[in-house]
Amino acid sequence: MKRTGGSDEAKRRAGEAAADRVTDGQVVGLGTGSTAAYAIRRLGRAVDSGLDVRAVPTSFQSRELAREVGIPLVTLDEATPDIAIDGADEVAGFDLVKGGGAAHAREKYVAGAADRFLVVVDDSKPTDRLAGPVPVEFLPGARVPVAAAIRDAGGEPTLRTAQQKDGPVVTDNGNLVFDCAFDAIDPEPLSATLSAIPGVVEHGLFVGMADAVFIGSESGVERRAPPLSE
Amino acid sequence: MKRTGGSDEAKRRAGEAAADRVTDGQVVGLGTGSTAAYAIRRLGRAVDSGLDVRAVPTSFQSRELAREVGIPLVTLDEATPDIAIDGADEVAGFDLVKGGGAAHAREKYVAGAADRFLVVVDDSKPTDRLAGPVPVEFLPGARVPVAAAIRDAGGEPTLRTAQQKDGPVVTDNGNLVFDCAFDAIDPEPLSATLSAIPGVVEHGLFVGMADAVFIGSESGVERRAPPLSE
Repeated sequence: MKRTGGSDEAKRRAGEAAADRVTDGQVVGLGTGSTAAYAIRRLGRAVDSGLDVRAVPTSFQSRELAREVGIPLVTLDEATPDIAIDGADEVAGFDLVKGGGAAHAREKYVAGAADRFLVVVDDSKPTDRLAGPVPVEFLPGARVPVAAAIRDAGGEPTLRTAQQKDGPVVTDNGNLVFDCAFDAIDPEPLSATLSAIPGVVEHGLFVGMADAVFIGSESGVERRAPPLSE
Repeated sequence: MKRTGGSDEAKRRAGEAAADRVTDGQVVGLGTGSTAAYAIRRLGRAVDSGLDVRAVPTSFQSRELAREVGIPLVTLDEATPDIAIDGADEVAGFDLVKGGGAAHAREKYVAGAADRFLVVVDDSKPTDRLAGPVPVEFLPGARVPVAAAIRDAGGEPTLRTAQQKDGPVVTDNGNLVFDCAFDAIDPEPLSATLSAIPGVVEHGLFVGMADAVFIGSESGVERRAPPLSE
């Protein structure tokens, strides 16, 4: 379900531009995925050069990468992020679909805890309207009723299958994921509907959470922010 | 946070009256707690007498008890409950607060999957207005932002502490629980607000899910059902 259309160069430009917004003394939420990884590597180089930051990872992957590049780690129990930087599978305005990496539950609560949430994407991700599929993480025992509720909401759920393991993908939280196709996505009501389904842990619609979107291309980075931001 | 005000006799009458509604061939969701346990034991005796039922438990506790009394078990992957029978910590009309036993996530998706949801309580549980506290199960890493969001919603969260174990209660799903005090509970909007908090797995408000409430007392059982039900 992960879109891999963007070039590495575009991802790098977006990730690094957002990382360069981090200032001395800040706490940074570290997203998951290939574009966020460029931000993490850039921050690691800045730490080597003396930048004082601490980071809250959103996944096993981002924690390991941060360790590798030497960024001191903390948890949300110890510090509140000033900034979170994370990728997205789709961006329409300031609404996102995330969860291609199945890390969207932790990504959402870290982004929600941060004062500012910077989204980093390559230029294959922006779209006029979110199209999905929308990843939905759920408690394993609730597979059948969650699928029924998603169908009632107009979606068609597909259990995400693992590679390098038989059976389904299991999230870092021990849960399963449906990728849910919808004919049309109206982000705000669909977000509320999915959140209310018993057994759903978190869905991949991030509605109105982004404070800025950095869109990388082969030639540069465009930064989009809502009129009242910054 | 569990209310233990009701008498065993009142709980027994409520639980058994609901169990007696189960008919041959049905699939039954089995709730958790002392009143639901009376329903499970009654069903076990009915199975001994030849009743053909299969049951979906909502917790480790209800699964073990059902096994002990000889009720064949299935999961929601195999069968959809015709009836779910479960207790509640508070009942106002057909809205409930549940989660004193920290099983409310599974209880909610089993009750939601069932065609009919029968609530069984002793006469200390009904009230004019739900007063709480409202249990909220959440992902362990999200403790601080979930607490902040609950405070924003007018609640005061207290991490539920375990007994027979150091530290917090860990749910059957591996998560933690806040018991959240509110000055006033407006069930429907508060339910939506709590469901939308990133990191929240499930909360204990069950709004409009009950199809009937069996209220046991020392002298009998009162059955309440909405005007259009049955």
